Amino acid sequence: MSKIVTLGEIMLRLSTENNNRFIQSNTFRADYGGGEANVAVSLANFGIESEYVTKLPNNPLSDSIFRYLKANGVETKNIVLGGERLGTYYLEVGTSVRASSVIYDRKYSSFSTLNYNELQIESILKDCKILHLSGITPALSENCKELTIKIMEKAKEMGVLISFDFNYRGKLWTLDEASPVLTSYLPYIDICFAGILDAKNIMKLGDHSDLNEYYKEITKKYPNIKYLLSTKRETHSVNENSLTGFIFKEGELIASPRYTFQIVDRVGGGDAFAAGALFGIYNNHSPKDIVDFATAASVYKHTVRGDANLVSKDEIYNIINNGISTVSR
Amino acid sequence: MSKIVTLGEIMLRLSTENNNRFIQSNTFRADYGGGEANVAVSLANFGIESEYVTKLPNNPLSDSIFRYLKANGVETKNIVLGGERLGTYYLEVGTSVRASSVIYDRKYSSFSTLNYNELQIESILKDCKILHLSGITPALSENCKELTIKIMEKAKEMGVLISFDFNYRGKLWTLDEASPVLTSYLPYIDICFAGILDAKNIMKLGDHSDLNEYYKEITKKYPNIKYLLSTKRETHSVNENSLTGFIFKEGELIASPRYTFQIVDRVGGGDAFAAGALFGIYNNHSPKDIVDFATAASVYKHTVRGDANLVSKDEIYNIINNGISTVSR
Amino acid sequence: MSKIVTLGEIMLRLSTENNNRFIQSNTFRADYGGGEANVAVSLANFGIESEYVTKLPNNPLSDSIFRYLKANGVETKNIVLGGERLGTYYLEVGTSVRASSVIYDRKYSSFSTLNYNELQIESILKDCKILHLSGITPALSENCKELTIKIMEKAKEMGVLISFDFNYRGKLWTLDEASPVLTSYLPYIDICFAGILDAKNIMKLGDHSDLNEYYKEITKKYPNIKYLLSTKRETHSVNENSLTGFIFKEGELIASPRYTFQIVDRVGGGDAFAAGALFGIYNNHSPKDIVDFATAASVYKHTVRGDANLVSKDEIYNIINNGISTVSR
Amino acid sequence: MSKIVTLGEIMLRLSTENNNRFIQSNTFRADYGGGEANVAVSLANFGIESEYVTKLPNNPLSDSIFRYLKANGVETKNIVLGGERLGTYYLEVGTSVRASSVIYDRKYSSFSTLNYNELQIESILKDCKILHLSGITPALSENCKELTIKIMEKAKEMGVLISFDFNYRGKLWTLDEASPVLTSYLPYIDICFAGILDAKNIMKLGDHSDLNEYYKEITKKYPNIKYLLSTKRETHSVNENSLTGFIFKEGELIASPRYTFQIVDRVGGGDAFAAGALFGIYNNHSPKDIVDFATAASVYKHTVRGDANLVSKDEIYNIINNGISTVSR
Amino acid sequence: MSKIVTLGEIMLRLSTENNNRFIQSNTFRADYGGGEANVAVSLANFGIESEYVTKLPNNPLSDSIFRYLKANGVETKNIVLGGERLGTYYLEVGTSVRASSVIYDRKYSSFSTLNYNELQIESILKDCKILHLSGITPALSENCKELTIKIMEKAKEMGVLISFDFNYRGKLWTLDEASPVLTSYLPYIDICFAGILDAKNIMKLGDHSDLNEYYKEITKKYPNIKYLLSTKRETHSVNENSLTGFIFKEGELIASPRYTFQIVDRVGGGDAFAAGALFGIYNNHSPKDIVDFATAASVYKHTVRGDANLVSKDEIYNIINNGISTVSR
Amino acid sequence: MSKIVTLGEIMLRLSTENNNRFIQSNTFRADYGGGEANVAVSLANFGIESEYVTKLPNNPLSDSIFRYLKANGVETKNIVLGGERLGTYYLEVGTSVRASSVIYDRKYSSFSTLNYNELQIESILKDCKILHLSGITPALSENCKELTIKIMEKAKEMGVLISFDFNYRGKLWTLDEASPVLTSYLPYIDICFAGILDAKNIMKLGDHSDLNEYYKEITKKYPNIKYLLSTKRETHSVNENSLTGFIFKEGELIASPRYTFQIVDRVGGGDAFAAGALFGIYNNHSPKDIVDFATAASVYKHTVRGDANLVSKDEIYNIINNGISTVSR
Repeated sequence: MSKIVTLGEIMLRLSTENNNRFIQSNTFRADYGGGEANVAVSLANFGIESEYVTKLPNNPLSDSIFRYLKANGVETKNIVLGGERLGTYYLEVGTSVRASSVIYDRKYSSFSTLNYNELQIESILKDCKILHLSGITPALSENCKELTIKIMEKAKEMGVLISFDFNYRGKLWTLDEASPVLTSYLPYIDICFAGILDAKNIMKLGDHSDLNEYYKEITKKYPNIKYLLSTKRETHSVNENSLTGFIFKEGELIASPRYTFQIVDRVGGGDAFAAGALFGIYNNHSPKDIVDFATAASVYKHTVRGDANLVSKDEIYNIINNGISTVSR
Repeated sequence: MSKIVTLGEIMLRLSTENNNRFIQSNTFRADYGGGEANVAVSLANFGIESEYVTKLPNNPLSDSIFRYLKANGVETKNIVLGGERLGTYYLEVGTSVRASSVIYDRKYSSFSTLNYNELQIESILKDCKILHLSGITPALSENCKELTIKIMEKAKEMGVLISFDFNYRGKLWTLDEASPVLTSYLPYIDICFAGILDAKNIMKLGDHSDLNEYYKEITKKYPNIKYLLSTKRETHSVNENSLTGFIFKEGELIASPRYTFQIVDRVGGGDAFAAGALFGIYNNHSPKDIVDFATAASVYKHTVRGDANLVSKDEIYNIINNGISTVSR
Repeated sequence: MSKIVTLGEIMLRLSTENNNRFIQSNTFRADYGGGEANVAVSLANFGIESEYVTKLPNNPLSDSIFRYLKANGVETKNIVLGGERLGTYYLEVGTSVRASSVIYDRKYSSFSTLNYNELQIESILKDCKILHLSGITPALSENCKELTIKIMEKAKEMGVLISFDFNYRGKLWTLDEASPVLTSYLPYIDICFAGILDAKNIMKLGDHSDLNEYYKEITKKYPNIKYLLSTKRETHSVNENSLTGFIFKEGELIASPRYTFQIVDRVGGGDAFAAGALFGIYNNHSPKDIVDFATAASVYKHTVRGDANLVSKDEIYNIINNGISTVSR
Repeated sequence: MSKIVTLGEIMLRLSTENNNRFIQSNTFRADYGGGEANVAVSLANFGIESEYVTKLPNNPLSDSIFRYLKANGVETKNIVLGGERLGTYYLEVGTSVRASSVIYDRKYSSFSTLNYNELQIESILKDCKILHLSGITPALSENCKELTIKIMEKAKEMGVLISFDFNYRGKLWTLDEASPVLTSYLPYIDICFAGILDAKNIMKLGDHSDLNEYYKEITKKYPNIKYLLSTKRETHSVNENSLTGFIFKEGELIASPRYTFQIVDRVGGGDAFAAGALFGIYNNHSPKDIVDFATAASVYKHTVRGDANLVSKDEIYNIINNGISTVSR
Repeated sequence: MSKIVTLGEIMLRLSTENNNRFIQSNTFRADYGGGEANVAVSLANFGIESEYVTKLPNNPLSDSIFRYLKANGVETKNIVLGGERLGTYYLEVGTSVRASSVIYDRKYSSFSTLNYNELQIESILKDCKILHLSGITPALSENCKELTIKIMEKAKEMGVLISFDFNYRGKLWTLDEASPVLTSYLPYIDICFAGILDAKNIMKLGDHSDLNEYYKEITKKYPNIKYLLSTKRETHSVNENSLTGFIFKEGELIASPRYTFQIVDRVGGGDAFAAGALFGIYNNHSPKDIVDFATAASVYKHTVRGDANLVSKDEIYNIINNGISTVSR
Repeated sequence: MSKIVTLGEIMLRLSTENNNRFIQSNTFRADYGGGEANVAVSLANFGIESEYVTKLPNNPLSDSIFRYLKANGVETKNIVLGGERLGTYYLEVGTSVRASSVIYDRKYSSFSTLNYNELQIESILKDCKILHLSGITPALSENCKELTIKIMEKAKEMGVLISFDFNYRGKLWTLDEASPVLTSYLPYIDICFAGILDAKNIMKLGDHSDLNEYYKEITKKYPNIKYLLSTKRETHSVNENSLTGFIFKEGELIASPRYTFQIVDRVGGGDAFAAGALFGIYNNHSPKDIVDFATAASVYKHTVRGDANLVSKDEIYNIINNGISTVSR
């Protein structure tokens, strides 16, 4: 029971460089990312045995993804090869008052055609302590909806903890489409990443005044959920935000410190929070330690280019314990 | 009466990259810009039929300018070819306490030799609703002084609205040289971009306590001026400024919200304001809507590399209506 | 009857830089290309009025394509907006013994869903002297097969000359699939770009000893074909080839000089030949002049990055007339 | 007995870019390489289980090396951490008549302090079919001399085949220093990479007229040597060479075809030959097949930036079987 | 007595680009720096005759250093050639909450082997008004310790003013190692750059409440020290700091204004302060003018890439007198 | 009598990168060059004391030129500051069949306004053994014509050897304009760089069958000319040429070996030949040694980016003595 497995879609990300707009760009930076892959990569960099499962087309772009995952020490042996194309997205990196902009080109991706039967499910879940999934997968296709629920059932059966990040994406499905699907997963979930908007708009809970009340209601309805987590983001400008993390455990809501910081790369901030939290939960840390580590990790991620949080646990502890220094020599 | 025409000089801009100083630079980024060209390009991106008139030497650098203008949908058919050289300027991009620095190499440019007779003036002003000029042109040469007044007379005669941006440049001429020339244009102008310093130092108006008083005096002397506009810039650092826009219409001074923002490229901020204002005036918007759009457009420009505001009107409205978001997906 | 129209798919091309392999690349250079678009861009650079028709998704990547076409002076007003995605391909640029490698990601593209009814066909073919199509289009989808034949019929009806480049792509369909489709177009074609392999494998003609014999047989069967053209490429290495062009007109086969040259960008060499030939045919040049210009243009293209031949007709004539010089000053 | 192990030094290579000389360079491209590491990486890309052993300092530069090796699928678990610094070398990339130039900064490297006792030698050699070493290691330090002979003895004892590449480097030691050391290894070697100059200057064999005679003498003296291999390089210019490979097995000398090719990166050409040969030997291919594959692999390497041959076996077979094509689509 | 001489180690600095972490970097930017070299370069840019003395290996990397120094107008004729290697360091440039990180690879450098006897000491100190040294040199090797004290004695003897920057580096030696060495220099020093931590931890002075008290005690014990200087840095984030400079002269502590600023390159900020101070001291400016210039120079340095302050004295005076402007044109 | 002085115009050169055409370029590489500056820089790199004289505008672009010259060890103390602008030229770097293309923007440059009286002529020519001028200078302006002849007269008077490179540029003046001017210099010249075309078209000599005959006639008419030199270039392609050097001394014509080579940067090839020849003449080498060194130097220059030959004399001797090697390690 020693590894953490994540399953989802990884995409080629093509980003504009040097503050150019799309229409000014004649080069793109290539990175690879997707919520669950980002979590796996971040966990491996924290020193946790992690495995990532997906489906990729059989071409050299996928080779680059395998190399990226292996370089980070993520197990790739259960990745399925096949399908027609690699999901892709284009990112125009914003700054100041200009928001970043995403063009998805992920339809018809290999992952969206992944069937439960293609997976070596026993090999994947054996020795697995936590399985991490997200609400992006069921948004991709009917296949992926079916896949998600079947994996959850199997994981439950094998005694694996289920971590789930709601990650609602308005460009992939409507709230009305997402609500019944995501809500149906709640009885399976042990660790749940969901915020006020998820509680209100997707779980369709009553009107509460604050996060604490929402979390109380959720855990009353779904006593199986051991951890509820989310962050509150304040946007001062596209390149300066504040972030506070929250964890709800055994009826108590605990907040992290509030960080204000400049942003190099906004994408993957939520996944870094999830990875930070799973790191603490995996190691049975206290709720306060879990949320402090997860929030500092998420803040740190905003300074790293690419989707994933390329940082060691010591570097995160250093920020938590010593604050910010400019240079060590 | 459907197009807006701008006439002036466009230059090759060679900028330092990656925060290098001039003496550290062995590459330059090439852009093309000039106040009136920037206005034309911005208007075309807002969806307005716009035409740009200038004079360019017959060489491949000018080809690049034609391609740039055409890519943006700006009409170029009345551009005159000839003369000896393309005006050029070098920009050291500053940050923090280090100001940006400009080296002009625009003397003897083709545009500075443009004669009124070289222009297909009927073709240029036919179907033209607004003609936009600036105070940079008469600063360039005697030719250009004569050109400016002749075009204004012709435009007046043909019933075209005249927009004029004072744009005083201390590196091109002294206040004493500029004052009589620019003041002589005032009776022709319908839409005037001029601030407190222009009123004081160029129009030589009496000492007033605020912009409102200056604008009242100007419109009393020149009742032909239907719109008076300007911005107030506060410099927190080279890469963080605040900006507020002002419009004076029918005796009333109206201010935009005040924006504080980080800066990617400071050049062309004023031209983006002018283009934003002309967009509103062209569409007969209310003074409040005009100044709000113009100011948001100017702020947005500071996030775009190059001289011109490569942004659609929807993106500006999005900032006005929804404030700043970090990423949409 | 003054313009040349081309219709087909244009794709975003993402190329590796600095001799990197795909798995070494973390940036890609972005260009835009497709056989018919390349012909339109090249013709516009030769000074011919050209228009390009395609279908593009409604997103900022398509904006970049519009800007690229407009910068080159290609008319874009009949381009259809809609569909799901922009066709994309990845190019690993080879050299020496390492071949260039292409990964197509063009399935489900907007263009592949284009229906004849979506086209403003009257506007497109009015004043059109030559319509240029290629064998790539029918390889893309059933839609595109139907589209191709319907346009040919309409063009015939409206007295437009039809130019067709066989352009067989083994990654898109098999010879058995292509043969009946492409052969069915032959009765419509006035200008036909097809080589020995096309004659043998697609038209399924008998075994002849040389190109001349093949061309004789083709024109005997399809007397409507006024021009038959092709090139012979010799591959000394991935970055050094030789090229000879051939034209068959009124029973006579004429060859261009044989050029040996180094290669900067191999893609679009055939399209540059087609554009060069159409330039000569449009201007009623002699067969010898047509093939000499087309071949020199194709050779020149190999020195230009991107898919299209960004070169003026004077530069081509300079090579034909004066051979190679190193620098003019 | 399924893996191939290589042991030696890996260095950070800092190369000039864009044909700049050292004194023109203000950026360097970073790659990682060393003869034995290059062999391990190349073998892994051919699909062979390969492991690399070295000693690295405990800092983030070594992290990059681990990531590079793991990305390529090379086992790294027996790499020793410790010592003071990472060996480094600077490469000025030449072209035409300007030779490439190397500045070594490898003295005092962690690897040069590696002791036999620091190695998990049982873990390293277990299941190892071939151990590959080179003459660079004993040139680095007394430590490394001792290390080399001890490993050979242990490998012999454990029934592992020993492959050895003479790789004489005049910048590291003199012929007089190298000769007794390298000669003393000959009785241990099964697969020997050594050419005419090695035979003459290091083994101090008598004067023979050709390679065949030298190889006959070597195998007479050292009947343990099952394979003798080398290449003959002809230098037409710094960026155009010809290469022919030779293998001597059971008394017979067999040559590969002679390839003439352009060069992107000359470094690692010999290591690519060794890896190609070990691939064939590992798979019990015929001598002709071994040398043909090894030579084509070496030629291919010259087209790949960096020290190692990032190529699959299929790509090499494609060149052997089909010759050179320009692009496949 | 007209020149200022500095002596110390200069290193090749290899920095990450575009906010990449070390493990993401496959290029490095190359600069050259070291405390004393930075001071010499900055002084030369202020128009002061300056000379730099060091020891460099005889290879092309050193050629680049000579070229860098000569380009800046620094005299290099007394630099000693020899030794084994150039000291190197790697800089991961941080931002926001991510600190910059340095990997030193300077051990065994040529400079660390420099002996007093290798220096043309008479030529170096002749006509020298101020000799500037730092506490980095004695931390490098026993050689360098001996060298430092011998040079100080000789300078004293020849009537040269001695400037010394404590520059304690925890990565090079411990406080216990540094304390006796650095303290032993105090009787020789005329101009001393040392702050509260140096006073407390290295000079081991008693516990005082503020800088003024420390400086009083120092000058009581070492009346030879004519100037004591330091800065106070406040770290708001890795890329935003505040800085205040202090000077103590004839019993009085004077502070500069406090600047808050964004950071392009943090390295060399202290050296820029030292150079600014030496500029004022050399020119016999008032203490207030000295510290104002030094502090503004240090702040300016944070906007310049590389180790040294590439700025003229006029640009510093412009900030002192006029504050910050965005662009002059 | 120990230094060589060169006088002429130096320009900012802005070159396209990565094989882009002008219209594809949005960055330019910046170098500095001009025939006489190139000679001075090359000579300094050969270890000869060299000084360069010109006139530059007082702006930061000139600072970069001073830094470039000083970095190369060229004396700059007699450079005159003043005038309006820095001469500039744009270079589209060609390859294969695509010629490089130059756009001059040098009119009205500071140098073109240089008057003889502005020069510190005594300081310039004192201790000068050879003064090198070229035919570009008199082509620039009337000023420059007068300047050239006056300097020649003064040099003659002071016993300085005069070297002159005809360097006819058709873009600057016609043969008819150049002929009387350049011919009038011949009685002053000791070392003359002029080829067959110069003899025919500018000196208007009779029709001879070969270079030897022309050189005989020239030295008969102008017995003051001690050395006549030129090269013969064969253009296989834009990036592959052959070059042979010729020297005529005391009635004998001697040829260098013929080199065939690939080209990185064609500009400055002739200046490198001149510098190589002056190096030999300065050191009283034999005519054969002079022409061999000059030709190898010129060939080498074609592999170096920028205008000047950044190479030591040892590197040239290495090519002459050992031919081409690929890498030394």
